[in-house]
Amino acid sequence: MTNASALPVVRTVAALRETVAGWRAAGQSVGFAPTMGALHEGHLSLIDAARGAADRCVASVFVNPTQFGPNEDFAAYPRTEDADAKLLAGRGCDLLYAPSADEMYPAGFATEISVSGVTEILCGASRPGHFDGVATVVAKLFNQVQPDLAVFGEKDFQQLQVIRRLVADLDLPVRILSAPTVREADGLAMSSRNRRLTPAQREVAARLNRVLKATAEALAAGEPAKPVLNAGADVLKEAGFDGVDYLEARMEDGLAPLQEGAGGQKARVLAAVRLNHDDGGDVRLIDNWPFTRPQAR
Amino acid sequence: MTNASALPVVRTVAALRETVAGWRAAGQSVGFAPTMGALHEGHLSLIDAARGAADRCVASVFVNPTQFGPNEDFAAYPRTEDADAKLLAGRGCDLLYAPSADEMYPAGFATEISVSGVTEILCGASRPGHFDGVATVVAKLFNQVQPDLAVFGEKDFQQLQVIRRLVADLDLPVRILSAPTVREADGLAMSSRNRRLTPAQREVAARLNRVLKATAEALAAGEPAKPVLNAGADVLKEAGFDGVDYLEARMEDGLAPLQEGAGGQKARVLAAVRLNHDDGGDVRLIDNWPFTRPQAR
Repeated sequence: MTNASALPVVRTVAALRETVAGWRAAGQSVGFAPTMGALHEGHLSLIDAARGAADRCVASVFVNPTQFGPNEDFAAYPRTEDADAKLLAGRGCDLLYAPSADEMYPAGFATEISVSGVTEILCGASRPGHFDGVATVVAKLFNQVQPDLAVFGEKDFQQLQVIRRLVADLDLPVRILSAPTVREADGLAMSSRNRRLTPAQREVAARLNRVLKATAEALAAGEPAKPVLNAGADVLKEAGFDGVDYLEARMEDGLAPLQEGAGGQKARVLAAVRLNHDDGGDVRLIDNWPFTRPQAR
Repeated sequence: MTNASALPVVRTVAALRETVAGWRAAGQSVGFAPTMGALHEGHLSLIDAARGAADRCVASVFVNPTQFGPNEDFAAYPRTEDADAKLLAGRGCDLLYAPSADEMYPAGFATEISVSGVTEILCGASRPGHFDGVATVVAKLFNQVQPDLAVFGEKDFQQLQVIRRLVADLDLPVRILSAPTVREADGLAMSSRNRRLTPAQREVAARLNRVLKATAEALAAGEPAKPVLNAGADVLKEAGFDGVDYLEARMEDGLAPLQEGAGGQKARVLAAVRLNHDDGGDVRLIDNWPFTRPQAR
């Protein structure tokens, strides 16, 4: 149960529930931060938020195969459990839950959760089935951990909206907190995938956030959306990104299309871009930035 | 909160959770029996089982629109809440949860749970989408009530297997109990739909269980399955049923096809039949009976 980091690690639902039941019996509340590991400051900010809102904090590390498409980077996704455990222990996390794929999806597994609407746009359009995998594994993790609250990052802004919809629709007894995106000094949103970038790609990657900010500023100034977004996509391509899956502006609430009359309401500009590797693989990066359209006069 | 029957009734998730939280705070365990109302002795046997296994018992009455097909009997399904509440109170049930469709599926609802495999045969083949509706509403009800255990009847044998699969796959922290089918004196399985039968149809309906028993006996005696089942379906049609959706023999475990070498293992013969009304509607009845193939010599 112990390792060099002194952070307890459990790998089965039974062991997880035994630990959490002990906390419950002592009247303690439980916060939860689900991750796919390869932890960075962005993840650790979720731990901080969970610790600030609950007596105990569980983190999970599980690279969930069902949310990767057949040609995506499941095999290449970084796995660094020992380093993750040390980082979590250093941040005051109480328990690491790191189940195997067999523990999560034993033989005969046959259930899938689908959230429609908010999953069909943006990343849902370019990654078919991705959000079904996310919704199913998050519901499982919630039922396994049974936390009072769970924390998700705003970097995966669409995922956050899918989780909120899932929790509301299935009446999951878990409060969802969001944490702001944590960035490198040059603005790049922290991501486990960043470590797969070459030095040259890392320089290109920093342009993503700058284009999102510039696009958001133009939209906040009342410039017409379509030409602003088209120009932004052109800038991304010129900056050296090999593909732009999308650059879109949407209302925060349900990620509905940007309403031209919606001055004063919260909106986001969101993008997904790709950088190709020589071996044929690619690194897909996402980011988003808030803005508010001006009030009509 | 009170009515003539003195059984507390709640109609919102918030009120439900408040009552259950009070029991939890007093250290009491909670049993749950979900129903679609129009209660009969079959349902009340679920209440008995829940009361026998937990300190407190919640029953729900909700005619779930999403498990009815477009041409099925959702509108005609009997609704008798006052009588239901009296019957539940008489059996020692502690709380009736009777939400509205708007409470269960508010505007923007967008989530569906699908269980594959066991849902695609038998009633799943003749009622497409039915078990998605069942799985989704049962997961919601479980998350709303948060019981220690829930009781389902063996009359809906396939539904019981779907629920067991759902609970295992999503790690729902609820123990599933099953209760034997309760029958009228002539063998007809009790069903809320029986009250929609004409007197003549009621006589035909009693033949269903007799044919299932005779089929099960022949299969238990080692007779070849296919001719036995074909003959049974012919008898059902001759008995006056207007349609036979299926008459099949399957292993109890996962409702896998009957394995010829599976002597000594639990199996079931299952049927769904229809009786037509003059107005164009019909009444669909299901039933099942256990058997065990003889051991090979």
